[in-house]
Amino acid sequence: MAGYYALPLELLAEEFARLPGIGIKTAHRLAYSVISRSDAEVQSFVDALLSAKRDIHFCSCCQNLTELEVCPICSDEERDQTTICVVESPKDVSALERSGEYHGVYHVLHGLISPIDGVTPENLHIRELLSRISKGSIQEVIMATNPTVEGDATAMYLAQLLEPLGVKVTRLAFGLPVGGTLEYADEVTLYKALENRTILH
Amino acid sequence: MAGYYALPLELLAEEFARLPGIGIKTAHRLAYSVISRSDAEVQSFVDALLSAKRDIHFCSCCQNLTELEVCPICSDEERDQTTICVVESPKDVSALERSGEYHGVYHVLHGLISPIDGVTPENLHIRELLSRISKGSIQEVIMATNPTVEGDATAMYLAQLLEPLGVKVTRLAFGLPVGGTLEYADEVTLYKALENRTILH
Repeated sequence: MAGYYALPLELLAEEFARLPGIGIKTAHRLAYSVISRSDAEVQSFVDALLSAKRDIHFCSCCQNLTELEVCPICSDEERDQTTICVVESPKDVSALERSGEYHGVYHVLHGLISPIDGVTPENLHIRELLSRISKGSIQEVIMATNPTVEGDATAMYLAQLLEPLGVKVTRLAFGLPVGGTLEYADEVTLYKALENRTILH
Repeated sequence: MAGYYALPLELLAEEFARLPGIGIKTAHRLAYSVISRSDAEVQSFVDALLSAKRDIHFCSCCQNLTELEVCPICSDEERDQTTICVVESPKDVSALERSGEYHGVYHVLHGLISPIDGVTPENLHIRELLSRISKGSIQEVIMATNPTVEGDATAMYLAQLLEPLGVKVTRLAFGLPVGGTLEYADEVTLYKALENRTILH
């Protein structure tokens, strides 16, 4: 497309196109929208970019992303600090928090074991989890990794690893999604829903 | 969503969400992707934003966006400098250039007359167009505004304005889009296609 657009606009569009899910057409639209904004608005965007990159790091306890030394969830004394929910990414923390049903704390692995992608247990924040549990106050660890091959494998690996530590290890329930239909459920989900059926009376 | 995410991440997501067509979920995904990039990559994004805002201005001749005093199309002596194609926005220049069929120059209005939105002829770059034509070397002005109410109104307004200057004024043809089907063409397009039918033999 070079030549039809001004070079700085083209370069900005290329930067937008590097973001996930942004195609070159959308990138051009976004680049146009930037130059039609005020200097102050663009500066505020730039400041937010630099600040997010500079100020965000891992919580020293749960490894979630935070701008503080210890994240607000870990330092919240109202929460049950004896239950750890192990998740793949900060997005999962956000999803579970939205449910409003969980009052314990988290541990973010920042990935799942996946030999195909070259991700081994050493690449995940497992050492920090073991160190938290070894301090002795943890009673239950909930494996809340995704119900995928990698999520299951990671949950199983961690369950084995935690066995000698004498801590209760649980896994999120599998079954039909609420609001879903039998017709569109896949075979494995149906199998899990049957296997884990609950008693009504 | 505040509280589940680190504040700088939340602020960055809000900035992304201000861009056109970016919802809050996508904005969070983009914000996450930024912090997983290297410092150099984020700096390069920031530089592109600042440079686009700082270096881009209107071509002193055609009013298209450019980082130069006169844009490459206006300063290209190979192009027919006696034919001006009048468009709404820089994106239209880009679209026409992609067709590869136009070898004249452009004039970008940066909007269309739209009293409902408070856009009057004074808000558009019409004075610069008149000044270019009054220099005497222009032979044809092609109205290439969109086939919408505003596009038609602007084309008609300009045609009237240019009449006393003795310059040929044309309008892009309306008809069926190539590759389209009669079945899905709207009534007005079909009417225009019939009205402007061409003789085969």
